[in-house]
Amino acid sequence: MRFEVHTQRREQMVDVTREIREVVERSGVVQGRVLLFCPHTTAAVTVNEAADPEVRTDILAGLAAIVPAVGPWRHAEGNSDAHVKATIVGASVDIPITDGQLGLGTWQGVFLCEFDGPRRRSLTVSVCAG
Amino acid sequence: MRFEVHTQRREQMVDVTREIREVVERSGVVQGRVLLFCPHTTAAVTVNEAADPEVRTDILAGLAAIVPAVGPWRHAEGNSDAHVKATIVGASVDIPITDGQLGLGTWQGVFLCEFDGPRRRSLTVSVCAG
Amino acid sequence: MRFEVHTQRREQMVDVTREIREVVERSGVVQGRVLLFCPHTTAAVTVNEAADPEVRTDILAGLAAIVPAVGPWRHAEGNSDAHVKATIVGASVDIPITDGQLGLGTWQGVFLCEFDGPRRRSLTVSVCAG
Repeated sequence: MRFEVHTQRREQMVDVTREIREVVERSGVVQGRVLLFCPHTTAAVTVNEAADPEVRTDILAGLAAIVPAVGPWRHAEGNSDAHVKATIVGASVDIPITDGQLGLGTWQGVFLCEFDGPRRRSLTVSVCAG
Repeated sequence: MRFEVHTQRREQMVDVTREIREVVERSGVVQGRVLLFCPHTTAAVTVNEAADPEVRTDILAGLAAIVPAVGPWRHAEGNSDAHVKATIVGASVDIPITDGQLGLGTWQGVFLCEFDGPRRRSLTVSVCAG
Repeated sequence: MRFEVHTQRREQMVDVTREIREVVERSGVVQGRVLLFCPHTTAAVTVNEAADPEVRTDILAGLAAIVPAVGPWRHAEGNSDAHVKATIVGASVDIPITDGQLGLGTWQGVFLCEFDGPRRRSLTVSVCAG
């Protein structure tokens, strides 16, 4: 299934853990895995700390320091940094389902990483037993 | 199954979307996922924009700016930058299959990222229902 | 299932290939895939060269050059670099199982990447047929 996320800034990490958890619980799958896939080329998905929001600030700042927004880029749309970050962070995460629960660690959450917002984004979630 | 890709340059992103799509269609799987795995340590796989080839140029240039080819590297083969990039980009991507189709976004393609070519590379594709 | 890894240094790549291989063999799965998931936010998992340990040294050095330990970080725990690296390297790897064997390439191993050790870490392994 798919769900939508509306991002508010050019760069933003949006916590989508609750949405994934609901899909897993509704699926009734007891042992398996859930795939979160980002069908966009200037956004990505990751798993990282959900407790302190400063961690998200630091992750976005760290990535911005690595990949400058203004550079000798060839692509004419002015968002090449966002494409590079999307490949660095990745388009998919796969998380185990154990005893019917999303198998995240204590401090982990699942995030959409927006690198060229604000935009309306959609994410695909696919649960599989086994 | 496996398929081969012959790369032509030291650094190159090769579009393998058609190959993945064919495996998915031949599999007959209607709902599930397809795993693309890169069994090499100086290459990787990613999902990013397939429309404008300049995006690929920028991704390779962005990664080259991050990880210098010449550095205080220890590994004697002179390709440490390629190993670092392989870990940054990643050895696998997992893509949903929806209604028998590869669930990519409008602008997305699937790419082998060559970081130490030219070489003959192989990629593993594994389709799973569920 | 889960297994524990005790890391010895702040930054370290620990080869866990043998542990993954054992889980795959015990599972009896002939065709499928194995998911390795890292339930921590300052560690990650990757696939890279297992032969020359200098490659691991270079990967850790390459990542340390990209993400400085001391920076204008906001998160108060002093390990923001570890969080950024965790998102760059990734929390999961998915590896095909072919003919009952872990489908790694000749030179590949599977690694826990510790970025804020020493710590006791656990990894989740999930095998799925199909």
